[in-house]
Amino acid sequence: MSLNNPLINLYSGQYDIMVDWVNGCINPLSKEDFKQELSPGKSTGIWILGHLVVCDDDFSEYMGKGKILYPELIELFGQGSKPAPAENYPAVSVLKEYWNNVCEKNKKVYLELNDSELDEPHALMENNEDNYFKTKKGVIVHWQLHQMYHAGQLGILVSRAGKSIY
Amino acid sequence: MSLNNPLINLYSGQYDIMVDWVNGCINPLSKEDFKQELSPGKSTGIWILGHLVVCDDDFSEYMGKGKILYPELIELFGQGSKPAPAENYPAVSVLKEYWNNVCEKNKKVYLELNDSELDEPHALMENNEDNYFKTKKGVIVHWQLHQMYHAGQLGILVSRAGKSIY
Repeated sequence: MSLNNPLINLYSGQYDIMVDWVNGCINPLSKEDFKQELSPGKSTGIWILGHLVVCDDDFSEYMGKGKILYPELIELFGQGSKPAPAENYPAVSVLKEYWNNVCEKNKKVYLELNDSELDEPHALMENNEDNYFKTKKGVIVHWQLHQMYHAGQLGILVSRAGKSIY
Repeated sequence: MSLNNPLINLYSGQYDIMVDWVNGCINPLSKEDFKQELSPGKSTGIWILGHLVVCDDDFSEYMGKGKILYPELIELFGQGSKPAPAENYPAVSVLKEYWNNVCEKNKKVYLELNDSELDEPHALMENNEDNYFKTKKGVIVHWQLHQMYHAGQLGILVSRAGKSIY
């Protein structure tokens, strides 16, 4: 795979580093730590965890390589959704399992991608559902950077809890 | 450049997207917004701004393509430094200017890199100063993802101020 698709290989390797980094921020946090608010009425730890799941889950659809696993989470954790009390959400342990599942799904998606696809319109572009990111490459870059953006926010909760990342 | 160095071209394009995203988090914040604390005694807005400068500034040294511009900031904002009152730091306007300067420097560094260098030891590895990231590629990926991590933390301050990113 790597010899034939050096660009995808690069993105795939970076995806693994991103996932490890995100996990380094998720793993130290307790159920109580996840309840903390970061921006009042706008962001809590558990909302960010669910948002990470939702935002990695649709990657396979954008690449045209498989369905969303957890469509029921979109309303709860999708872009623009408002944080609710933790009781309204699936348990942290369940959301962590979902996170691992979408990451495993996406690691396989990277193995199925070819360099020649990178400048192609992404699969939802073809259906006119979303034309902001335009190409598969545009989706890959923005999706990976987006997850690091939210990892940093969980990192604040790790720091507040007096714990360390990793 | 792009035809001969497709991998560097990819990283360079991603660097530009990262910088735009970070700027989208920096630009809406006022001097007062930057004074806010995120993790008590560990992280404030202005500390993050200075930390972004320090962490992009040494990129040119790791690549073997030029000196640090602001070595005097390392003690104030380097990894492991503790946030001080805003009065102890250069003004936000000055730090923003420094941030723009290191980004401009690094955009030129990407133009000087070749794909054949990516798996080479980074320039400080050769001096045994830092052997964790090993290759130039390892530094590029971790440096870019690291900046997004802190952008997300500034994004919390943007959200708290009732403002929008970009």
